[in-house]
Amino acid sequence: MTQALDRNLQTQPLDVPSAIVQRRAIKNFKPDAIAPELLRRLVELTVAAPSSWNLQDWRIVLVQDEAQKKALAEAAWNQQQILQAPVTFVFAADPNAWQDREQINQIALETGAWAQQNVDYFNSAIPQFQAMLGDKTREYAVKDAVIAATHLALAAESFGLSSCFMNGWIEDQVKAVIGASDTDLAIAVVVPIGYAADPRGNPGRLPFSNNVFVDRVGTPYEG
Amino acid sequence: MTQALDRNLQTQPLDVPSAIVQRRAIKNFKPDAIAPELLRRLVELTVAAPSSWNLQDWRIVLVQDEAQKKALAEAAWNQQQILQAPVTFVFAADPNAWQDREQINQIALETGAWAQQNVDYFNSAIPQFQAMLGDKTREYAVKDAVIAATHLALAAESFGLSSCFMNGWIEDQVKAVIGASDTDLAIAVVVPIGYAADPRGNPGRLPFSNNVFVDRVGTPYEG
Repeated sequence: MTQALDRNLQTQPLDVPSAIVQRRAIKNFKPDAIAPELLRRLVELTVAAPSSWNLQDWRIVLVQDEAQKKALAEAAWNQQQILQAPVTFVFAADPNAWQDREQINQIALETGAWAQQNVDYFNSAIPQFQAMLGDKTREYAVKDAVIAATHLALAAESFGLSSCFMNGWIEDQVKAVIGASDTDLAIAVVVPIGYAADPRGNPGRLPFSNNVFVDRVGTPYEG
Repeated sequence: MTQALDRNLQTQPLDVPSAIVQRRAIKNFKPDAIAPELLRRLVELTVAAPSSWNLQDWRIVLVQDEAQKKALAEAAWNQQQILQAPVTFVFAADPNAWQDREQINQIALETGAWAQQNVDYFNSAIPQFQAMLGDKTREYAVKDAVIAATHLALAAESFGLSSCFMNGWIEDQVKAVIGASDTDLAIAVVVPIGYAADPRGNPGRLPFSNNVFVDRVGTPYEG
């Protein structure tokens, strides 16, 4: 553990551009554990992500237990990376989180980031906004969870760890594994974290002309 | 321009943990332009994000024209940051992108990251997976666009720029502004990028006990 900590927390983490360029979706992990102090730092950096109205509507489950890893892998067509990685983060999203903001308001008032007038505005605006979302309520909660998952992946990369964004799972089965079957939680994304056993190549990117535009779709970004 | 480039691309970008901790949702930007070389670097780092099956199904519109900025702000309840920031990235997502993978396959074969057997597998698996998604097809495309937007926000922060994840807009109006009314594109998130005019405070985060768990929802992560 100390050794793992030494080679991660005590060395300078990668800068953002390097972490972005270096990151690949790793499918094979070494069995090496992640030092508890390093895991804690990853969790801190994950929940430092922004969220709509600062709702922090992600519900994050760190799957570490061997039986739980096996059950989660079965919910994901037995993809081995979940069995191999020391921890897999399941990012769920609570579409009802906006209804309970008391503690969020209290903390923001204490930090001084929000004044009472901000809280009053939010108390008026948030229910209106959420009502307007209608059937997109789930999508908006999922977006917040995905932002947090991306913070995790890049933070992990910066400390010498690897990750894999996984969409290949059966939602109802994942919910059963994490004990959320009787809730409205949406499963957003599943992210194993660990030390890469095998490198993976970069499949490359489309030219900007395919999907980056200026002012209107169809006007190419010449860069 | 040269001056702006000097203070960004020629200095060491921030490491990932520092960029994450430092980032705030900035609502007021200076009128300072972003050097073209720096903007290009941001676009490169944005599309370096991972996506489901490497579909790169984001459609990114850099809104810079004054009239377009005004129209986009109007679609977003006149939030001033769109008018103030030199560029606002509109992240749209194409739920039909999976149907056209020829160029993606070709590039990945050329880089050597994929072999023909990978392409054959994808050609079989992707249509099945997308059919299974059903009414979640849109959500899955939106997730990819949000991962890319998060890459942008952290890359911008690392170069001394600021950002703001915006959900407050009328989707049909944003689509009209970017000329996408007659498409299936979903608007995922809108992100102004520029130099912060005013700092913003950190509203803080909930204790881990609220939303971080081990193995099952409800089992607290003690950290």
